[in-house]
This record gives sequence, C-alpha cells and structure tokens, in this order.
Amino acid sequence: MQHAELRERVLEANVALGRAGLVTLTFGNASAADREAGVVAIKPSGVPNDRLRAADVAVVELATGELVDSGLRPSSDTPTHLALYRAWPAVGGVVHTHSPFATAWAQARRELPCFGTTHADHFDGAVPVTRPLAPSEIEGEYERATGDVILETFASLALDPLDRPAVLIASHGPFVWGASVEEAVENAIVLETVAASAYRSVVLAAGLEAIPAELREKHFKRKHGAGAYYGQSA
Amino acid sequence: MQHAELRERVLEANVALGRAGLVTLTFGNASAADREAGVVAIKPSGVPNDRLRAADVAVVELATGELVDSGLRPSSDTPTHLALYRAWPAVGGVVHTHSPFATAWAQARRELPCFGTTHADHFDGAVPVTRPLAPSEIEGEYERATGDVILETFASLALDPLDRPAVLIASHGPFVWGASVEEAVENAIVLETVAASAYRSVVLAAGLEAIPAELREKHFKRKHGAGAYYGQSA
Amino acid sequence: MQHAELRERVLEANVALGRAGLVTLTFGNASAADREAGVVAIKPSGVPNDRLRAADVAVVELATGELVDSGLRPSSDTPTHLALYRAWPAVGGVVHTHSPFATAWAQARRELPCFGTTHADHFDGAVPVTRPLAPSEIEGEYERATGDVILETFASLALDPLDRPAVLIASHGPFVWGASVEEAVENAIVLETVAASAYRSVVLAAGLEAIPAELREKHFKRKHGAGAYYGQSA
Amino acid sequence: MQHAELRERVLEANVALGRAGLVTLTFGNASAADREAGVVAIKPSGVPNDRLRAADVAVVELATGELVDSGLRPSSDTPTHLALYRAWPAVGGVVHTHSPFATAWAQARRELPCFGTTHADHFDGAVPVTRPLAPSEIEGEYERATGDVILETFASLALDPLDRPAVLIASHGPFVWGASVEEAVENAIVLETVAASAYRSVVLAAGLEAIPAELREKHFKRKHGAGAYYGQSA
Repeated sequence: MQHAELRERVLEANVALGRAGLVTLTFGNASAADREAGVVAIKPSGVPNDRLRAADVAVVELATGELVDSGLRPSSDTPTHLALYRAWPAVGGVVHTHSPFATAWAQARRELPCFGTTHADHFDGAVPVTRPLAPSEIEGEYERATGDVILETFASLALDPLDRPAVLIASHGPFVWGASVEEAVENAIVLETVAASAYRSVVLAAGLEAIPAELREKHFKRKHGAGAYYGQSA
Repeated sequence: MQHAELRERVLEANVALGRAGLVTLTFGNASAADREAGVVAIKPSGVPNDRLRAADVAVVELATGELVDSGLRPSSDTPTHLALYRAWPAVGGVVHTHSPFATAWAQARRELPCFGTTHADHFDGAVPVTRPLAPSEIEGEYERATGDVILETFASLALDPLDRPAVLIASHGPFVWGASVEEAVENAIVLETVAASAYRSVVLAAGLEAIPAELREKHFKRKHGAGAYYGQSA
Repeated sequence: MQHAELRERVLEANVALGRAGLVTLTFGNASAADREAGVVAIKPSGVPNDRLRAADVAVVELATGELVDSGLRPSSDTPTHLALYRAWPAVGGVVHTHSPFATAWAQARRELPCFGTTHADHFDGAVPVTRPLAPSEIEGEYERATGDVILETFASLALDPLDRPAVLIASHGPFVWGASVEEAVENAIVLETVAASAYRSVVLAAGLEAIPAELREKHFKRKHGAGAYYGQSA
Repeated sequence: MQHAELRERVLEANVALGRAGLVTLTFGNASAADREAGVVAIKPSGVPNDRLRAADVAVVELATGELVDSGLRPSSDTPTHLALYRAWPAVGGVVHTHSPFATAWAQARRELPCFGTTHADHFDGAVPVTRPLAPSEIEGEYERATGDVILETFASLALDPLDRPAVLIASHGPFVWGASVEEAVENAIVLETVAASAYRSVVLAAGLEAIPAELREKHFKRKHGAGAYYGQSA
C-alpha cells in the first residue's frame, strides 16, 4: 500500500470526527496533503466511518486530481479540498462536516462573530460566510466552485487562512483546515463548540456585539506567534 | 419460524432506531414488506426495543392485516403502515418515531423547509405536514385515517414518495419510509438531523427562506437518478 | 434486612432515574409504598445514586414518617412524598427530579400544555403548575407544604392523580407518580420527553394551542381503561 | 514526587471536569491549595485531560507563583487562581471551565439569576458577571487582572465567596471554587446545570424574575450552616 502513513492519518481523522459528534452517517470528510509527494489522501465517497479502513482511503494527485492507484472513488467534495490545497501552501489538512451548530449558522447565512475567548484562542476574528453560488456555478463544476468561493471570500477580506482556519458555506456547512489534518480536526471541534455557545449567547442577548479587538488579539497571541505563552512547547 | 429473515431485519431496524436516539421507551416502530409473499413484518405493540426478539416480531397479511401466525399483537399503528404499502408499491420499509426535533416541527404544525444541502441530498423539497384529522376521523378507524391523510397530502402536492420519503403528522410526529426498511431507518436519522439544524436556523434567522431550486436539485441528483455521482456504486 | 424487596425496587428506581439523565448528583429521589405493611421506602438524603445500596434505602412509617429501623436519614423531601401517599390511595410510587426541560417549565411557572400524542398517551391534559408557596408556608414545614400545594392544585382542578400523574412545583421542578414506582419512573421519562418537545414547539410556534380534546382522549384511551388496545396485555 | 496526594486530587478533579462534559480539549483547569505547605497544585498548560498524569501536575508557591520543582509549565490561568487563594483564605480549590451554558451567559454579559431551588441549594443569589476589562488590564498582566476583577466584583457586592462560589467572566466563561477542589468541581457541575435550566426558563418566560428571598434562603440553609438538615452528616 502506497502512502500508508498518510492514509492511516486520514483514517484516524475521519474516525475522530465521528467520535466528536461532528459527522453523522457519511456527512463529512477529512483529507491530508503530502506536498513532497504531491498527493492528497481523502475519505472515499459514501463510506461510513465505522466501516472505513486505511486501504479504502483514496489518494489523488494534488495537481490533477487523478487517482494514484486503483482504490475507491474519492469523496465528491475532493475538488473543494484540492482548490484549498493549491491556493494555500501552508495548509496540510482539510475537514468538511455538517456539525450541528456550525451548520445552523451556515444555513442562516450569518457569519459567526467572535463572542468569547475560546473563539479568539483559535480564530483571529469572525468566521466568515460565503456568498450564495450563482446558478451557473451550481450547474457547472459545483464542488470546484465551492472551493473558489471560499478563496474569493478570504481574498476579499484579506484573511490569512491559518489565522482564521474555517469558513461557513452558505446553505451548506463548514469547511475547516490547519497546518496538519490533526490540527484541522481540532479546529473543527473548536468551531462547533464556539458555534454552540454563540447560538446560545444571541438567544440570551439579541444584539450582542463581538468582543473588543484588544481582548481578541490578546487571546489569539497567547497561542500563536513569537509571544505565545500557552502550552508546553512555545 | 416463518419469514425469519424479514423478522430479523425488522428487529435490527427497531434496535437501530433506539440506538440512534430516535425512539424512547416504546414510542416508535419499524416495518418491512415482502411483496412476493404478500406480508408485512412489524414491531409488536408496547414491547421495548431492548426486550424485543425476532420471534416477537408480528407478521400480517399485506392485503387484510390479519396475523399470519399466532405471534404477539402488532403495533397499534399497523393500519397506518399498511395504507402506505398498499398505495405505494415502491416502498419496502416504513418507520414511525417521535424523534425530538422532527416531533417539535410536527407539533408546531409547520412543514420542514429545505434550508441546506443535507436535506436536499435526501428529500427533494420541504417535508410536508398533514392537515389536522377531523373529529369523525379520530373517533373512527383512527390509525387507518392517519395513513389516508398522508396519502391525501402527497396526492394533493403531487409528490413522489421515494423522492420525498417523510411526512410530519400534525400534533403527532414523523412517518418515514424507503425502498427498504434499512433505507427508511437512514431517512429517519437524516430527518431528525435536518429538523434539528432547521430549528436552530430559524432561531438565528427568523424569516429564513428555503434554498434555491437549482442548489436543491443539484444535491438531490448527486445522490439519485441516472446522473448520480455520490458513493461507490452509482 | 426488613422490606428487602421494597428497598431493592427503590434502589433500582433511583438508579434508573440517573441512567435516563433525569437526576444529576443528588438532585432527585424515588420512593415506593407497601400499603399492607404501612411503610414507604425512600432514597436516603444526599447519597449519590452510584454509591447507593439497597441496605441504605430508608424505610419510614406511612402514618407517622418515623424511621422503621436504624438506617440512613431519609430524603429531606420525605414529607412531600408522604402527603401524596396519604391523600391518594391508588398511588404506589413517587418520583422527584430536576430533569432539564421539565424544570425549565416549572421555573418559568408555566403549565405544560398537551401539544402532541405522546403527552396524551400518558397524561389526560396539561401538567399543572402549582401556585407559589406563601412565606409562612416556606418558613414552616416547607416540604409538607409542598405536598399540600400539590393536593390543593389537583383538588381545585378536580384531577384524578393517576390520569394526570405529574405536577410542576413553581420555581422548583417536577413531582411524578404512578400505581407503582416503576410506573412513576416511566412517567418521569415521558414527562421530560414531552417537556423538551413542547419547549421546541413553542419556539417554532409562539402562540401554539393544545391539541383538540378528541385527539387527546383518543390517545389516552388507547392506553387506559376498558377500551384500551395498546400493548400486549389489555 | 513531592505533594503526591495533592497532585493526585488535582488530576482527579481535572478528569472529573472532562467526564462531566464541562471541559472540551484543553479548555479548563482545576487547582487545589495546601495552605500549610504554602503551595498550589494546578493543571499544566495545554495538556489534554486524557493524557494527564499526577506527575505532570504543576506545583507552585502560593506566595510567589514560582514552580516548586522542575515540572511542566503551569496553566496560563495560574495568576487568576492565585489571586483568589490569596484573597480568600477559606477557599481550597478553584476550577475554570468553558462549560456550554455558563459560557453562553458569560458571553451574553448577563448575571445568572436564581430561578429555582437547585440554584438556591448551592448559591445564595445570582451568580454575578464581571465588568469588561479595560484595554490596559488586557495588555498588562491579563490573567492577574482577571483575578482582580473577580475580587472587585465580590467586594463591591459584599458577597461571601463560599456562599456564592462562582462568577462569570464577561466574554469568557466561569470560575468556580469551594472549600476543597472536590467541592469546586461539584459547584461547577451545579453551575452548568442551573445555567442550562435558566437559559430555557428565559426562553419560556422572557421577563422572568428571580425567586423570592424566603424561598432562596430556605433552600440555601437546608444545606448550609447550623440549621442544615440535608444529607447524612449535618
């Protein structure tokens, strides 16, 4: 089996998404890139997590999307994953879920404001929501267009993808990423956690505003960059 | 034991409903049809899932509703199940639950709009809600009348039962079906998932409208029909 | 050990309340009456369910509330339980919880309307909420006064306690009962289930009205009385 | 290993927070003071609960915050914990979580009113919310300032910390304490329970007022002080 370790990590990531309650049935997928080898390993389409084996994980060429060997058909969302890997060289893992509260914000077509410090620890501001896709984008290469509208959203807001590692696809659900697939899974768990507390916060305080910039930056920088002082390794 | 495999599948389906959190105590039932044999196997009335055995599953004649052998009394909802099997030859399994969020929509007497892509993957539009039953329908053959009002709802809206495999009974809860009982169980899980995210979506965006037809159709056709490209077998 | 079987059943009932998610830490208690022996077995005060043994279950005289043997101190809510057993000879078990959604209705001081058929299967109408206790009642024999206000509520509404086997204590939580303690536990599970779906129903439909009387009666009588046709034993 | 028993208790407390669903990933920490030894044991920074060992628990001087031996780096929230221990001699354990519902109230910047008897059993009134920190406090010794604003809140309201053993940090989450770390963990579980029922209570009754003082005091005194009659040991 080629790319055995990469496949194993992608298997683990998909299983972790189910265990964390972020994926029901087959509604989600995780991928990891090996940029030296020029490949992406991704969940096969329509296979439930509890039946997934490392050998079933699909491996495709990063540049072309072609299957590397004769495995199962990759996730139908593969073109979305590839668009992100191609545009953002620092990204090593991508996760797509329909986690309950993040999906509610996506379906409501509302960005997820930064209402608290856990949000600020991981995302340096609001998690943006994409514009709706045009009919021509939906009817054409739909999954590729989903990737393009993510890139358009981040370009127009001038966001760094690793400082704001998630997006809400309007009427759909979240895509989340990270320097590695393990980090992408962690960010997906954090996103769902803060989406739930933000939901309850606006129920308790309808016109609630985001936290002030100085508090948001303090928390983000506790965990990121040269001045970080959270954890054991910084 | 006659119809051993059919009974086994109905047992599994009822257990799966409990495991997925869709059925509390005895509030739900699953059935499967064997159209060649002309029979329907269904959960016995009032038996909790954790005490159910395959031999307890009731088997009735599809045409008459008569018990095939001397087993336990079938679910009191059997006439509702039979009405659907008789009218819709493509249906092979029927499930009734009081799953938490789907029941909330049914009790609120609101149809469940299509607010996102997971909904569109499985249902080609809003899950309809029935009209309230008239007093004469309630006092007469109530469970049969429940089946009839489902059929009336689908006829008046000109819906294909396998393209929109669920309904909300006003002031009651959901009925869900599929080509097989396994598919009906999966559709019941999906229904509860999308009922929950739709609930939270309208809390976040009170006047939210359904997704555009082109997005809904794109997703439904990714999974159904000649152009399907989701999963391994299409 | 005297009354070993009664103690065992009360132990099981308390454990079942925890397993069903109705009791956190020590916030709840179950009791059972043996009317021939003139005693009531009840959870000891402040002992968590996971450390409870049958020998710890307290047994008191139904008439006087005196401990039958030198066991642990009975629940501080014992006078409330005893008031119900003394007034209602058909009641064999009483349960008190702070289950999440039933407590929300009790704290909101709203009766729980009958919005659906699961409610109607078990309660023949709205679960009433008590009036607030007067300061003199709180400062005096508080737990006894809690029992008295339940009886006052049921007397003023002319309700049969076994046809409407639950009440919401204003600013407190539910008391639930049944012909046996096992039935009381089941009714407590049902109460929490319907309190949750009713909560979500009023979020979806603010001015929602109770279901019509004919539907409510149809369902209650499917399970109760001479014409019952639900389950295996009727 | 120095302070082995203290470390073991802090390990247990952190694990208990995860098991109770109050801490996701590394978003929380528990500490315990040994006042005779003049030390505080606290969770190390950024270590998930499922990988935590007693030997990893950090021990610092209560007076200086200096590490006692060469262990892992203590939680970044250590200065907040120390501020509370120094000001409040009766406090033996401190817990910080981002439990879902308590965090929603903190993010909404609303105090948590006493709406029911479970709240009154543990807290003698509303759980207060702090004022927002000033930019200079955030940019300076932020975690120390978080401790100071808790003390300021309790001083300005003239609250006894053991009668009201929790606070909501605006835009952040709860800090909870007790005479021991075990009691602090129990109070954190209670806080989350009552934060959830209070959330649902205000959804059901928008302008709901706190319970009357006589009911609140009755319940608090059932469990605390000379007249307590709840539990086995009072």
